Amino acid sequence: MPTETPGHRSDQRIAEVTITPVAFRDLPLLNTVGVHEPYAIRAIVEVRTDEGLTGLGETYADTAHLARLRRAAEEITGTGVWDLNELARRVRASLAGDTGTGGHGMAGMVTNSSTADAVLSPFEVACLDVQGQATGLPVSALLGGAVRDRVEYSAYLFYKWAAHPGQEPDAWGAALDPDGIVAQARQMIGAYGFSAIKLKGGVFPPEEEIEAIRALRRAFPDHPLRIDPNGAWTVETSIRVGQELDGVLEYLEDPTAGMAGMAEVAKKVPMPLATNMCVVGFADIEPAVKRDAVGVVLSDHHFWGGLTRSRLLAGICETFGLGMSMHSNSHLGISLAAMTHLAAASPSLTYACDTHWPWKDPGEDVIVDGALTFSEGALAVPAGPGLGVTLDRDRLARLHEQYVRCGLRDRDDTGYMRRIDPSYELKQPRW
Amino acid sequence: MPTETPGHRSDQRIAEVTITPVAFRDLPLLNTVGVHEPYAIRAIVEVRTDEGLTGLGETYADTAHLARLRRAAEEITGTGVWDLNELARRVRASLAGDTGTGGHGMAGMVTNSSTADAVLSPFEVACLDVQGQATGLPVSALLGGAVRDRVEYSAYLFYKWAAHPGQEPDAWGAALDPDGIVAQARQMIGAYGFSAIKLKGGVFPPEEEIEAIRALRRAFPDHPLRIDPNGAWTVETSIRVGQELDGVLEYLEDPTAGMAGMAEVAKKVPMPLATNMCVVGFADIEPAVKRDAVGVVLSDHHFWGGLTRSRLLAGICETFGLGMSMHSNSHLGISLAAMTHLAAASPSLTYACDTHWPWKDPGEDVIVDGALTFSEGALAVPAGPGLGVTLDRDRLARLHEQYVRCGLRDRDDTGYMRRIDPSYELKQPRW
Repeated sequence: MPTETPGHRSDQRIAEVTITPVAFRDLPLLNTVGVHEPYAIRAIVEVRTDEGLTGLGETYADTAHLARLRRAAEEITGTGVWDLNELARRVRASLAGDTGTGGHGMAGMVTNSSTADAVLSPFEVACLDVQGQATGLPVSALLGGAVRDRVEYSAYLFYKWAAHPGQEPDAWGAALDPDGIVAQARQMIGAYGFSAIKLKGGVFPPEEEIEAIRALRRAFPDHPLRIDPNGAWTVETSIRVGQELDGVLEYLEDPTAGMAGMAEVAKKVPMPLATNMCVVGFADIEPAVKRDAVGVVLSDHHFWGGLTRSRLLAGICETFGLGMSMHSNSHLGISLAAMTHLAAASPSLTYACDTHWPWKDPGEDVIVDGALTFSEGALAVPAGPGLGVTLDRDRLARLHEQYVRCGLRDRDDTGYMRRIDPSYELKQPRW
Repeated sequence: MPTETPGHRSDQRIAEVTITPVAFRDLPLLNTVGVHEPYAIRAIVEVRTDEGLTGLGETYADTAHLARLRRAAEEITGTGVWDLNELARRVRASLAGDTGTGGHGMAGMVTNSSTADAVLSPFEVACLDVQGQATGLPVSALLGGAVRDRVEYSAYLFYKWAAHPGQEPDAWGAALDPDGIVAQARQMIGAYGFSAIKLKGGVFPPEEEIEAIRALRRAFPDHPLRIDPNGAWTVETSIRVGQELDGVLEYLEDPTAGMAGMAEVAKKVPMPLATNMCVVGFADIEPAVKRDAVGVVLSDHHFWGGLTRSRLLAGICETFGLGMSMHSNSHLGISLAAMTHLAAASPSLTYACDTHWPWKDPGEDVIVDGALTFSEGALAVPAGPGLGVTLDRDRLARLHEQYVRCGLRDRDDTGYMRRIDPSYELKQPRW
């Protein structure tokens, strides 16, 4: 029986890797470490095989991370696209002697995730994209099969200014109080149909953010609600907020920094604690389980080592009775496609996933439009081969030029805030 | 770009499932619950797809398990061979209302493994076999890639009689004391080249088995040694044996029954405790981790839900700092191929795996000879598509006839022993 397509063997090898940093416009979204800069930066990874297929990946583009990606890219040439064990081994080898901790693209909000897993991720996603193209299967099938044909995302609300200083107001306007947050939610849910809501907190005193949550509950009585202050609160504040919002929150995300504090809060609040700060790598799982520190892990294939390792995380969460949801940073369409395949193939991922997608200028991306369209708060899982998205080289070139021109090389929400407000102080906990 | 072979789409669906119980000759191997009967029984699973490919699986054939396999077989028709999430869902659905606990093919030595995972396993393996045939990839590649091209197995020694009552002595002769065990080890290692040794214990008083281990140490100074009394010992006995064999054993396998006892022993003995009795399913992992009850999990894809779920187990073991080794029951070549692919694709599986292979009559199997040949204690990982083994329909028919003729329908080491020695008593703990 024939088992290979001539010229398109499944067993393709990585022949060439291209890494292109890009910048796309971002809005002044506030968080506890500062404010988003006018551009978000990402690295687009193209893995070309000896059979002429190209797989895509997307990751952070901070300087240290870019340098690591480039070292890894040299090391992985020749690896088979199915040989993910070998891919991981070579990525780890490429990092030998690298003891740096920066470059994780999180503006200081996540610093302890595995460097090797963050570097591995875009190459692994690109290999899965090639596997899918070579076999005619969507990435979700390669991950065990889609258990849902649409993936729900949440309305990810931010306190924000009307505009970056010196620029015209953006289409969203300011949101600096409960009314502004509710208006933002109405606008976003009106456009996308999301059926769950997450508020990025840690910006204003907890009482104001509690008020914003209560205002959202009044305006959207049936939407599950979450708040994420990125560890801005003390243990005491976290417990107080959690108890005040009993029956209102679906989960409370990273109220306080550190495993010990989270474990203390978890004992005293009625809702599950979710995290993408305290459990950010496989090494964090055992201590978190032994302390019952968290109830929901926000997966993120960008720092959990790619899609197959995120499926491992999902299996671990199922095994230990932990919920799984999904974290997001500012991202483009390649990441959104990968997130959607992962969520589709993860039976226990029953929460609506986070995405920054609505904050992105719809005119800016690196893929051809049309593959990813929201309807009633969800994305249809791409059913075509691989990730199901196609690189648009003109758009890639434009966003790369923008990267070169904008001068941003490392995400620095705090530095940008300080340039605007020299009195701004970074504090953790803040309240 | 063409992504599919006409007539051999990757996305094949299960069209027909055939389950054939078979029996093959077995030797009078002793364990703490009795003695192996003259035949071992297995079920051979063939999954035929709508594209005409056939994938193979092998599992237990006890009556209750066979009935479950047949119910599941009806339920899974139409499932895509990549859609392992859906396969698992349908197998679970087929078991609705089934509250039986028997049929796990373990003669009472493992009773709490997941019924759903045991039923899923052969179908999942068969689907991976088809995936491999459709893509031209070996199963090890579909599991993340072989990290080794040969898989080490261990010399699995048993106390045994010279023959089943009323039969001529077999080629191995009796092994009922340290000298007999050393002679058996010499014969097996001479034939296969194994570089690690496991003794099935729990048969004679611990002092005699300690003597056998010491005799093996003298005869094979460099071979890692293990003993597995299948929970025959009290906590006190286990601690005493463990302490006496300090520096001699690589690991001590299931010395005592139950998680609480294992946890107590683990605190007091110098070597890791291994298990395929106390951690036999995903539900056992959290309690074992929280109690530090075991150091090494003996994986077995036959009861851990197949190969991808065994890879999940491997990832969990890595995450929690547990070692992983591999358990075996009496099996044929389909199982041995699946075990070898799994071990090859599991980076942390660094122990030599168990296998009953040497105890099988080389003339009896259901596959074409030649795919699996031991050299220096290891098997080369099959590099061809799928599992890399081919069903021999004549041999299958012969072993099925033997199943019909021999009349054995459930593994019953204890019943067989009692028919031979009416005074035999089942005791746990025995010492």
